[in-house]
Amino acid sequence: MSEAFIDELRNALGNGAVLSGSDIDARYHHDLAGNPAPKPRAVVRPKTTEDVSALLRLCHRESVPVTTQGGMTGLVRGAMPNADEIVLSMERMNNVEEVDASAGVAIAQAGTPLQKLQERVEQDGLMFPLDLGARGSCTIGGNISTNAGGNRVIRYGMTRDLILGLEVVTADGTVLKGLRKYIKNNTGIDLKHLFIGSEGILGVVTRAALRVFPAPAERQVALCAMPSFGQVMALLKLARKSLGGDLTAFEAMWNAYYRHTVERVRGVAGPLPTHHPFYVLLEASGSDAERIRDGLEKMLETAMSDNVIFDATLSTSIASVAAIWRIRDSSVELGRSFPFAARMGFDVSVAIDRMEEYADTLDARVKAIDPQAFTIVMGHVGDGNLHPSVYHEHTPDKHDEFEKLVYDLTGEFGGSISAEHGIGISRRPYLKMSRTEQEIETMRTLKRALDPKNILNPGRIFTV
Amino acid sequence: MSEAFIDELRNALGNGAVLSGSDIDARYHHDLAGNPAPKPRAVVRPKTTEDVSALLRLCHRESVPVTTQGGMTGLVRGAMPNADEIVLSMERMNNVEEVDASAGVAIAQAGTPLQKLQERVEQDGLMFPLDLGARGSCTIGGNISTNAGGNRVIRYGMTRDLILGLEVVTADGTVLKGLRKYIKNNTGIDLKHLFIGSEGILGVVTRAALRVFPAPAERQVALCAMPSFGQVMALLKLARKSLGGDLTAFEAMWNAYYRHTVERVRGVAGPLPTHHPFYVLLEASGSDAERIRDGLEKMLETAMSDNVIFDATLSTSIASVAAIWRIRDSSVELGRSFPFAARMGFDVSVAIDRMEEYADTLDARVKAIDPQAFTIVMGHVGDGNLHPSVYHEHTPDKHDEFEKLVYDLTGEFGGSISAEHGIGISRRPYLKMSRTEQEIETMRTLKRALDPKNILNPGRIFTV
Repeated sequence: MSEAFIDELRNALGNGAVLSGSDIDARYHHDLAGNPAPKPRAVVRPKTTEDVSALLRLCHRESVPVTTQGGMTGLVRGAMPNADEIVLSMERMNNVEEVDASAGVAIAQAGTPLQKLQERVEQDGLMFPLDLGARGSCTIGGNISTNAGGNRVIRYGMTRDLILGLEVVTADGTVLKGLRKYIKNNTGIDLKHLFIGSEGILGVVTRAALRVFPAPAERQVALCAMPSFGQVMALLKLARKSLGGDLTAFEAMWNAYYRHTVERVRGVAGPLPTHHPFYVLLEASGSDAERIRDGLEKMLETAMSDNVIFDATLSTSIASVAAIWRIRDSSVELGRSFPFAARMGFDVSVAIDRMEEYADTLDARVKAIDPQAFTIVMGHVGDGNLHPSVYHEHTPDKHDEFEKLVYDLTGEFGGSISAEHGIGISRRPYLKMSRTEQEIETMRTLKRALDPKNILNPGRIFTV
Repeated sequence: MSEAFIDELRNALGNGAVLSGSDIDARYHHDLAGNPAPKPRAVVRPKTTEDVSALLRLCHRESVPVTTQGGMTGLVRGAMPNADEIVLSMERMNNVEEVDASAGVAIAQAGTPLQKLQERVEQDGLMFPLDLGARGSCTIGGNISTNAGGNRVIRYGMTRDLILGLEVVTADGTVLKGLRKYIKNNTGIDLKHLFIGSEGILGVVTRAALRVFPAPAERQVALCAMPSFGQVMALLKLARKSLGGDLTAFEAMWNAYYRHTVERVRGVAGPLPTHHPFYVLLEASGSDAERIRDGLEKMLETAMSDNVIFDATLSTSIASVAAIWRIRDSSVELGRSFPFAARMGFDVSVAIDRMEEYADTLDARVKAIDPQAFTIVMGHVGDGNLHPSVYHEHTPDKHDEFEKLVYDLTGEFGGSISAEHGIGISRRPYLKMSRTEQEIETMRTLKRALDPKNILNPGRIFTV
């Protein structure tokens, strides 16, 4: 990439849009885990869709590779630049352009932080249901490109399910104006689904029409302790039956997660003792406050009298709702409380009735490699999604061995090696555990068709 | 297409799999509306995915076009053969292969009739929520290829939202084994979404992993009469608030639909008088019978005392639930009670707060062309989806003029010209009302990449 090309970008997008050399902050080549990547050749920060189109048209002409960045909270190196790539940062396209309560839709630019959107629609009595620990930094565009899941999938689905329409710029600068607001639109191939979850390799999302819902009048959270995973499953069944569509979260924590978080993460208080084998955070919310409260209390009573739960605490205020959620949301902080080289986070889908066996087998195999190593498991059990971590402080050289162990085990259980986080670069070697050769070749066919010069996030997910 | 090629198909798939000449029944070239199409050269009826693969491999080699057929209940000529095409009928792949209650998934072959699947999972205390009037004939594969909507979209979403995984055969016979059972799987491009709703032009769906839910213990239906569309919207808001996720259907009928159906369709009884301007069929269902009954009764009381509804009847038995649903499900029979050439059905998405204006404008413009013509409107109002019909018995020559009128009006209202039924061949001239030139060109790029010889349902949706 020549200096003349960088100058051409400056001319096309305006001087302030292009950073190079010492103007490039470290945040453009470090991710949430603190991993470094090569410093990019330039960082381009468009302000409009037309800017994005102009940038890609030029990069396409010159076959210059581009990696698109949102909030840099990803965990699979998907947005980390390779050497000699241009970074396309969406940070200056961060506005919520429209909120329409009657249609139940908000239009946001891709660089809008999730929390900014959440707070903006709250002003109109609405809720955007996507929610995850990284809400303050992650962006809508990043959420879309990874099809983020988070805490309320059990009720509202993944990011994919919250998208009505997308505006996307493809590799040669073509703008696809698909920013539609209706739920039902069967007029040919549904192009937006190509871009959702494909980690930016097929196009750059610039704006999205997102589903928003009336803000629930009532939101209650219970933290329950129980002696076995069988009871966790029984509680899920009971909660689904008693609360129906009012059940908005069902998050399970194995003992080690709860205990370590309460003991190690500053600012987290544990309302229940730390010796129980399993903990569940359960949220009910909706518009009819009385119904929510009654339903949740009745359900807890039934669960208590049937010995499904041994101990429970119910939120009594907005502050206590937040305090209970803080336990579940502290996974990154918990990880950081252990030495860097020794922690490995995973993100898998496994059938719920095999989760306990999965977690036990994982722990046993980890200990077979290093008796002092251990696992910490929690996850969105209602969605079939676990986040196991492996900690091996004394055997940092065994990193690859532990990684292979987890993916092999997930394959044995017929699960997915990436429920929420995507493949990026980190998990590329393991893609074949969850996808057949024919599927990967079909992905390559699509990539070649839509990005013939392979300039968009090249090498993420697979190589062409 | 040569006789030798038909013989080669017989050799590859077995003699019983291939029909030709007088063995080809009229049902393979007539659709639900009774429209005829040219008789196909051959009808091929595979029994296995391998058969489908063998057929497509041969057709790809010889560039022979193939149109895939499910239950032939489509309304846009998408499955009607063009001259000199082979029909691929999925009718012999009609088994439900597996029902797994704990994972909430059923595996069905594409040719399985919807009602057969519904009844099979009911035996295990489960429900497959997709439901539409054509349930007895339409097939799972057809539902997937058109992304069918139906009566419970407000709670469970479109067919797309009910698919966990698909097995698909692409144009050259490649089998994509994506029959996965988990909700969360972010491992690259989500290929299944390419095939859902794309009307068979990118691949042939052979089997599907479908989401199933615990069968609701209670199901109650109310039929409400109200004097204005404003009150229909008020009732929807109230129902969403009071019933939350227990609200499973909200179907609105303009006076003409209710009145004509009760008066003209045999076997339909109207529990309310026929003079009210609007009627709403509202269903609540869930696992907690007491809560459903209480919630619905309380909501109806509130609606009555607030003058949102003027009259209402509540189902008192399974038979009365079915009787009320029969009114809504009789749209095809209602159409048939008018002379063939004079009826035109449409399927549009329009913002709910503009639906009344849309319907009134439509009726006025129809009458401006032919003062004796009239419209009948009903639809899934909660999903933004209307099904208007135009009846013009005295001006059969004005067919094209009425069609243009409806699509132009939908364009003016920023709606979709096809909410549920797809584009097929009938609506191809109007695709540009709902899709930009760039989007259509991107669809062509995908078609060329996945079906380079243009053999799968050629000419449906668009021409390459």
